[in-house]
Amino acid sequence: MTCAALLATDRPNDTSGILMQHLDHRPDSRLDNLINPRSVAVVGASDDPVRISGRPLAYLKKHGFGGAIYPINPNRETVQGLKAYASLLDLPEVPDVAIVAIPAQHVLPAIADAGRKGVASAIIMSSGFAEAGGEGVAMQQELLRLGREGGVRLIGPNCVGLFSAGSRFYGTFTQSLDGGVPKPGGVAVVSQSGAYGGYIAYLARERGLGVNYWITTGNEVDVDAAEAIGWLALRDDVKVIAVYLEGVRNGPAFLNALAMARAAKKPVVVMKVGRSEAGAIAASSHTASLAGTDAVYDAVFREYGALRARTTEEQLDIAEACLAGKFPSGNRLGIVTLSGGVGVQMCDAAESYGLNVAPMPKPAQEKLRALLPYAAVANPIDTTAQVMNDMSLVSKNLEIVLKDGGYDSLVSFLTTVPAAQAYGTKLRDAILAGVAAAGGNRLAVLCMAAPKEAMDAYRDAGFLVYQDADRAVQIVGAMSHFGKAFEAESGTVDTGDAPRFETQARALSEHEAKAVLSKAGVPFLPERLAATREATVAAATEVGFPVAMKIVSGDIQHKSDIGGVMLNIKDADAAGAAFDTIIANAKAHVPDAVLDGVLVAPMAPHGIETIVGVMRDPVFGPVVMFGLGGVLVEVLKDVTFSIAPFDEKDAMAMIRRIKGYPMLEGVRGAGRSDIEALAKVLSDLSRFAAKNADTIESLDLNPLRILLGKGGAVALDAVIVPRKAN
Amino acid sequence: MTCAALLATDRPNDTSGILMQHLDHRPDSRLDNLINPRSVAVVGASDDPVRISGRPLAYLKKHGFGGAIYPINPNRETVQGLKAYASLLDLPEVPDVAIVAIPAQHVLPAIADAGRKGVASAIIMSSGFAEAGGEGVAMQQELLRLGREGGVRLIGPNCVGLFSAGSRFYGTFTQSLDGGVPKPGGVAVVSQSGAYGGYIAYLARERGLGVNYWITTGNEVDVDAAEAIGWLALRDDVKVIAVYLEGVRNGPAFLNALAMARAAKKPVVVMKVGRSEAGAIAASSHTASLAGTDAVYDAVFREYGALRARTTEEQLDIAEACLAGKFPSGNRLGIVTLSGGVGVQMCDAAESYGLNVAPMPKPAQEKLRALLPYAAVANPIDTTAQVMNDMSLVSKNLEIVLKDGGYDSLVSFLTTVPAAQAYGTKLRDAILAGVAAAGGNRLAVLCMAAPKEAMDAYRDAGFLVYQDADRAVQIVGAMSHFGKAFEAESGTVDTGDAPRFETQARALSEHEAKAVLSKAGVPFLPERLAATREATVAAATEVGFPVAMKIVSGDIQHKSDIGGVMLNIKDADAAGAAFDTIIANAKAHVPDAVLDGVLVAPMAPHGIETIVGVMRDPVFGPVVMFGLGGVLVEVLKDVTFSIAPFDEKDAMAMIRRIKGYPMLEGVRGAGRSDIEALAKVLSDLSRFAAKNADTIESLDLNPLRILLGKGGAVALDAVIVPRKAN
Repeated sequence: MTCAALLATDRPNDTSGILMQHLDHRPDSRLDNLINPRSVAVVGASDDPVRISGRPLAYLKKHGFGGAIYPINPNRETVQGLKAYASLLDLPEVPDVAIVAIPAQHVLPAIADAGRKGVASAIIMSSGFAEAGGEGVAMQQELLRLGREGGVRLIGPNCVGLFSAGSRFYGTFTQSLDGGVPKPGGVAVVSQSGAYGGYIAYLARERGLGVNYWITTGNEVDVDAAEAIGWLALRDDVKVIAVYLEGVRNGPAFLNALAMARAAKKPVVVMKVGRSEAGAIAASSHTASLAGTDAVYDAVFREYGALRARTTEEQLDIAEACLAGKFPSGNRLGIVTLSGGVGVQMCDAAESYGLNVAPMPKPAQEKLRALLPYAAVANPIDTTAQVMNDMSLVSKNLEIVLKDGGYDSLVSFLTTVPAAQAYGTKLRDAILAGVAAAGGNRLAVLCMAAPKEAMDAYRDAGFLVYQDADRAVQIVGAMSHFGKAFEAESGTVDTGDAPRFETQARALSEHEAKAVLSKAGVPFLPERLAATREATVAAATEVGFPVAMKIVSGDIQHKSDIGGVMLNIKDADAAGAAFDTIIANAKAHVPDAVLDGVLVAPMAPHGIETIVGVMRDPVFGPVVMFGLGGVLVEVLKDVTFSIAPFDEKDAMAMIRRIKGYPMLEGVRGAGRSDIEALAKVLSDLSRFAAKNADTIESLDLNPLRILLGKGGAVALDAVIVPRKAN
Repeated sequence: MTCAALLATDRPNDTSGILMQHLDHRPDSRLDNLINPRSVAVVGASDDPVRISGRPLAYLKKHGFGGAIYPINPNRETVQGLKAYASLLDLPEVPDVAIVAIPAQHVLPAIADAGRKGVASAIIMSSGFAEAGGEGVAMQQELLRLGREGGVRLIGPNCVGLFSAGSRFYGTFTQSLDGGVPKPGGVAVVSQSGAYGGYIAYLARERGLGVNYWITTGNEVDVDAAEAIGWLALRDDVKVIAVYLEGVRNGPAFLNALAMARAAKKPVVVMKVGRSEAGAIAASSHTASLAGTDAVYDAVFREYGALRARTTEEQLDIAEACLAGKFPSGNRLGIVTLSGGVGVQMCDAAESYGLNVAPMPKPAQEKLRALLPYAAVANPIDTTAQVMNDMSLVSKNLEIVLKDGGYDSLVSFLTTVPAAQAYGTKLRDAILAGVAAAGGNRLAVLCMAAPKEAMDAYRDAGFLVYQDADRAVQIVGAMSHFGKAFEAESGTVDTGDAPRFETQARALSEHEAKAVLSKAGVPFLPERLAATREATVAAATEVGFPVAMKIVSGDIQHKSDIGGVMLNIKDADAAGAAFDTIIANAKAHVPDAVLDGVLVAPMAPHGIETIVGVMRDPVFGPVVMFGLGGVLVEVLKDVTFSIAPFDEKDAMAMIRRIKGYPMLEGVRGAGRSDIEALAKVLSDLSRFAAKNADTIESLDLNPLRILLGKGGAVALDAVIVPRKAN
């Protein structure tokens, strides 16, 4: 089993036609021209405000864009009442951005003009480029060349544009804004899909969610989702970034963007499609981008603190909740309900969202019981509806729960009580008083069914409010996720003193691979390479019987299958005979193989078998895989991935992530294996892989055996596949 | 590893205070009096319409209950304007139902009066019974006794009542109906929790979901959720039953109710809380009911065709969709979108909801490509928004997809296009025409963002319409789930000619257990019990060397641990020596054990190790567990459960359910194991367990080894734990 074989789906790895962009950590000031322009030209502007080429102009006028608007249309004097110009070159000033909404074949000259005029940026809405295949691919490459040459940053082609609420710049033709635009607010949207982007713009408006920036990136010939995220991460008027991805083109740039967002404490909530096998196939046929492996995306999001949403509604709910800006640093959740049953439901949800429903400390339980003799006081705390008879009990109860319970967050189920006019603001005030008395800056999420006005009144008082109990708890989970991510050390792991592996044309033999990896920190058994019968007997005697023997050849991968491995060889005579047998088997099965001899090693000590591998993801580079050994693990796909390089702390988290982890802790009377040694191997290997991303295609330690106690780890086999020179 | 040990959480198994009800397959006509009464007495009726004891009267009056209403209140002439009576005995007629809303200590005399008067049923809202513990438990038992004695069926105590929209009978004090009641409609609600029930009544009203029956069961002293479900299953004015459960008291009655609902093609959508470990603990402290094991509930819902919802919103969405009454018999889903990206998102969702996104047949793809050259034509079908330029293309495209694609269901993502006034009804008509032209009775689900009126217009045209792409696909999954459930043969599996196992006081030895289970159809190796050294040698010679030997004693469970097992014994001398060693080891480790001798058996053939067990669930009786063998499986909890008895077809489904199933099919070059033999053992054992539910506590075959090809299966060990007499 190799690392690559364990990945659920392999996607085509053809990079032709995809231009890797230069990674630049400083935001390009031309993105300011692009996203917050002070003036705009619309190339191909139509007088018909519902046509694709007419709509951007109509939106700009309708929503009061403050700067100059220059329609470019050689056939008209005016367009939608504005003076038209024949070409960009004819404009009286240099606009910040050119919107290009003309047939594909006319786009290239327009971008050349933009370059000549000195226009800093262009939004290319035209389709018929890479997504159309054939000539479109070449045309898109030429587009980029022209943009680079003329200093024009390009977004699109095949995008539906972008908007910036602060500038009142609505440079888009999306039909989804026909009924109006979302109100301004702290959400920024970045979408590779115009349709998805339009959809959530519509939903945002409908739910009153404020959106300051909305950017669709289309074919991403130049500006991609990563660059947009990076730019947004540095904006004060952005509180959260909602992203839709089909695939990332430039892995390092994307990681850099996520790191920028995390450093700026801007939550990133991602809808990444192509999770399923069917979806991955559909995605690879749909998008011109390299999709990469979905499990690797999961690793990326996890490691860089982004949160992956499963549904659009979830994505919007989480983004909206982020606007409150409360990200608990711990995951201890106190649940207070007027209904025991819903408390149980919330417990179920808490477990699935990674929250800890720790019971109240005993003295706090006593205190609560004295206050509310009929209540359940552990956690969930079920006050029952009787608490409603005295609002001071509500306050006092919450204060005790939060203060004495030491919870990072509170979720409270209020049934339909807030709908009752009889209580007016009394209940809300009582809850506010209780939370305030507890002090601190805790996240308080309420669940209730009540008229919108009643729920909004709670929202205005600073609570996050939901109708669905599961969603209420999920929001706590999401906010805690970001709280943890923002607290994580942002110091990047470097490759340290990992040795350099130079490019090789030939596959490495096991012995060569072990020699290389030994220097990288991977522990192996002391073993000798012996080329002759005599040397083998001598080596075996030196190593000490019993020994194991294996064929050594760069041309033979599956040594056991051809009779190239013999174990438990007890003495010198047997060692000599084993050498003859192994060499004969190798010659019989792989006649052309270059044989280096046999490896002679002591018999391996007992331990838990694991498999550690490195694969090169086409998008994100070297990725380390870890799992337990054995066919069953392969069937169950109980493996996990981390982007290289990472340190031993991250490696420990990785190890704990597999479901079979208790095997390493020791079950059914078995002792604990040397998990720390395993973590060191993982981290060392990740640094080595990252250092040599350009020369190594894949690596496998299979098995890596983990010994009991402080016995260390030992790799019994090693494979290095060098990367072919391009 | 035993079956019981594998269950995630063990709940207290104390049945004291829980009265098992008599299971009756014929609905009791007194439930008609209870739920659809023609006249009602309200015992303890208060003049204050917002008090618990005043609200039922207020609701009955407000919502126009058609029959006579008799307040019972000895202290008043009238209550809320109605003539009051001093006691039930004073009434001029016998009311169908008595609502009892008085302090607990006064309830018993009131029920005695009801019996004397001949009242057929009572709704007991009073709390202070079993849920309060102590005297309340005894009072609840006395309540049941009085009800039985007087012929009064009881619902509650500690419930919030029920309503029946057809009778305009709102016999409840739930505050959630203060703002109004849900409109009448095909949904019925059964909730063990008054708060949860009230919550979904509120949400149903808010979303315009029609509810004909709403029943809360509280402490379930008599009428329980199961009986309510069974009664509802037979009503023509019920289309779907939404259920909230904390725990089932009477397992067989509950299974019977689910079977009745399935036979009547009434979908049951369940919220069962206590899924998580924390939730299970909270549930057991919250509810007076025996919760049973959550994994067993999953088995029950699966086997009886009920669908378990994870969130309340999901439960209501699914219940609402069921009202359309379209339950596809297959799971092939065609996805048609105006956006490729959302098509991928829908693929992801389809996989997680068990739907098959099979590609269009090649000729159909050609046909589509001829129609829409720019479209993706496999499945998802991405027409792109260009299809909107000619509505006849929309119709033709859908017709081809549905007819030539052979899909059972269609889901279509329409972006925000339906929001555009410009299209008016054209798009809707085009979709309707396409679906109609394809013929058949397919489920068509649409996803769009548009104003409520626009979405409702599509709903009125017969579509299910959602804003969220994941939810749209989930609904298809849910309707397909019910379609499959309704098609399943409803013939119940009986225990057949499974042998009878009589009660035993003493634990059975392995040899005894094997003898019993052999008769039940479990295959074992031919083996001999030998009590002496000489008999052992003779037996080994007869069985044929090499042999395995094991100590036989009802007092020794873990034979390997005490040196009671020896393998690969090669000849007569070794057999004699092994007898001495095993007996000596047994005497040394378990001095008081009664030793029957040793078992002599051939060495077991190679195969895949599985574990098969039977445990007695406190609620649902014998449950069969199946999984692969080994510690790792135990750690990963890759096991599955089925309620006994079941046939071989069900057993095959059970086997396929474990994640490790490919191991049995053969992976990495290994052949297929005899899965049919395994299925037969599972089914035979399930019948045996069901036949002897009263005498067997648990059973284990560990390991049950499955041989290659048609080699059969063989159990290498067997344990029967007899049930202790109560």
